[in-house]
Amino acid sequence: MNDRILGDDASRGGARGGTLVTKRFFALDGKGYEAGALSAKQKELLGLVASMVLRCDDCIAYHIDQCVAVGATDDELWETFDIALIVGGSIVIPHLRRGVEFLDMARAKAAM
Amino acid sequence: MNDRILGDDASRGGARGGTLVTKRFFALDGKGYEAGALSAKQKELLGLVASMVLRCDDCIAYHIDQCVAVGATDDELWETFDIALIVGGSIVIPHLRRGVEFLDMARAKAAM
Amino acid sequence: MNDRILGDDASRGGARGGTLVTKRFFALDGKGYEAGALSAKQKELLGLVASMVLRCDDCIAYHIDQCVAVGATDDELWETFDIALIVGGSIVIPHLRRGVEFLDMARAKAAM
Amino acid sequence: MNDRILGDDASRGGARGGTLVTKRFFALDGKGYEAGALSAKQKELLGLVASMVLRCDDCIAYHIDQCVAVGATDDELWETFDIALIVGGSIVIPHLRRGVEFLDMARAKAAM
Amino acid sequence: MNDRILGDDASRGGARGGTLVTKRFFALDGKGYEAGALSAKQKELLGLVASMVLRCDDCIAYHIDQCVAVGATDDELWETFDIALIVGGSIVIPHLRRGVEFLDMARAKAAM
Amino acid sequence: MNDRILGDDASRGGARGGTLVTKRFFALDGKGYEAGALSAKQKELLGLVASMVLRCDDCIAYHIDQCVAVGATDDELWETFDIALIVGGSIVIPHLRRGVEFLDMARAKAAM
Repeated sequence: MNDRILGDDASRGGARGGTLVTKRFFALDGKGYEAGALSAKQKELLGLVASMVLRCDDCIAYHIDQCVAVGATDDELWETFDIALIVGGSIVIPHLRRGVEFLDMARAKAAM
Repeated sequence: MNDRILGDDASRGGARGGTLVTKRFFALDGKGYEAGALSAKQKELLGLVASMVLRCDDCIAYHIDQCVAVGATDDELWETFDIALIVGGSIVIPHLRRGVEFLDMARAKAAM
Repeated sequence: MNDRILGDDASRGGARGGTLVTKRFFALDGKGYEAGALSAKQKELLGLVASMVLRCDDCIAYHIDQCVAVGATDDELWETFDIALIVGGSIVIPHLRRGVEFLDMARAKAAM
Repeated sequence: MNDRILGDDASRGGARGGTLVTKRFFALDGKGYEAGALSAKQKELLGLVASMVLRCDDCIAYHIDQCVAVGATDDELWETFDIALIVGGSIVIPHLRRGVEFLDMARAKAAM
Repeated sequence: MNDRILGDDASRGGARGGTLVTKRFFALDGKGYEAGALSAKQKELLGLVASMVLRCDDCIAYHIDQCVAVGATDDELWETFDIALIVGGSIVIPHLRRGVEFLDMARAKAAM
Repeated sequence: MNDRILGDDASRGGARGGTLVTKRFFALDGKGYEAGALSAKQKELLGLVASMVLRCDDCIAYHIDQCVAVGATDDELWETFDIALIVGGSIVIPHLRRGVEFLDMARAKAAM
């Protein structure tokens, strides 16, 4: 799907894909999470809590994978879940449940 | 206002205030930001980014004050603003502007 | 302002106002809160909790006035605030504070 | 999944689960819906309308089950749907459709 | 499902369906998109961008079908996606991906 | 404030301002509204409806000014308000009221 959006028209059989604006947005989205004054792990935890209070499951799954990849511990992730739960309320609970499933899958994959 | 909500009826002239549920929620809200696996600073930055994407100015002002109190640098705050801006979009811009005003006030107060 | 939106063009110096769609929406908004299987008080409490979790201060002020007008007690209002707080999270707190102010004003006005 | 979040580490093979903050939040969530000045039914209808305007299908399904369990009638539920629809707009419609499916399932289960 | 909501009780085996308020809301929802000062295409693009920033997949699918039906081009749709992406942020990305899938399906169906 | 965010450190007395990510986001935000397959007017109406359903008054004021600048008529604006009202519900009403005030101010300024 990323190629469908970001690739050139030839690669998708001539169908129109993302504009220059779309492509720049995707590039900026990647750049925002690069380590700076905050580490990559801190930024991924920020992305995770933002995704949880906005209740976007795909975004939660993505950021949990990234958090695991850059070394976040379970304790750090649960404390991040708690901030999301307190700020966002019980409406976050179904997304927290799915977050735990995503985390278990990410840990299982990393253990293989 | 906190006394109006959390105090006892006598302290507010007999008017009804927060219930036991209200009081427990406020207590839990405080407890969630105590240092644990994540430092108080990391948790305040998480609270800040969540407040920015949910676009709550009072919450942004509160967390910026807390961030300054626990030693967050301007660079760390601007990188947190950036995550909020990318995740939440241009609709966050007016709140980012006010966040900068809150930060300038917090720095000025801390310099006095 | 309601006349600016719902009145006829002559009443606002020729400026365009709400369309037929706008006017029908406003009429439907009024009709939805009329007593039916649920009492007017129950419906106003529903409107209040919805306004609180969506964090709209003008809507909260309006529904608190209506709740007071149809006889809601302070205990009923605080329990409604609690549901909003639990479902919507700490992001609701600034709106709960303003809700208490609106309530105090509504009670003071009713006592005059 | 509740045991995965709220149980002790032994019960989930040593994996970390919810913190003390998580557990207290879940307990408070339950406590908020206990009968008080408002009946359990009135509180469940408040939880339902809040879930609908925030557009959380899992929460809608849960509260409809609870509403049926505490004796809410179809007329009361449809009037609650209407408040959600008016306050939250057409964006609520897909969730209203699923709400009707949840209700039909809850009634069918109760009739068995 | 529309008949379940908008039909008469006999057509759904006696079960209660939408109230007069529900039915009027659905009628108004249809009326709002009729051509006026803005063309039907412009209104559908407005409905699409609103659905994208509010992140409602069913609504996005519906409006993309309507946009294709009234002659919106791929370039017009991608520029609408871009406004949603900029205003709503990266949280819109999963919905943009699904929007592209809906669009490909709508074009395939129209080509049959 | 734009200079506070986008200017160089010297122009704001050495205080830190927006990062490269912040600046690129602001640039992209401007680029998204340039005329393409859709006219500047159509894009501004899209930005307006998105701002209304997300309920951001500063954004609504900005886009109404832009809409007036690129020649949107009152009828086009009221039909855009209607889409926002139907999609977003009665919670949009306070923002619609302020939108009308912004429009009256923009027309008065343009008439001077």
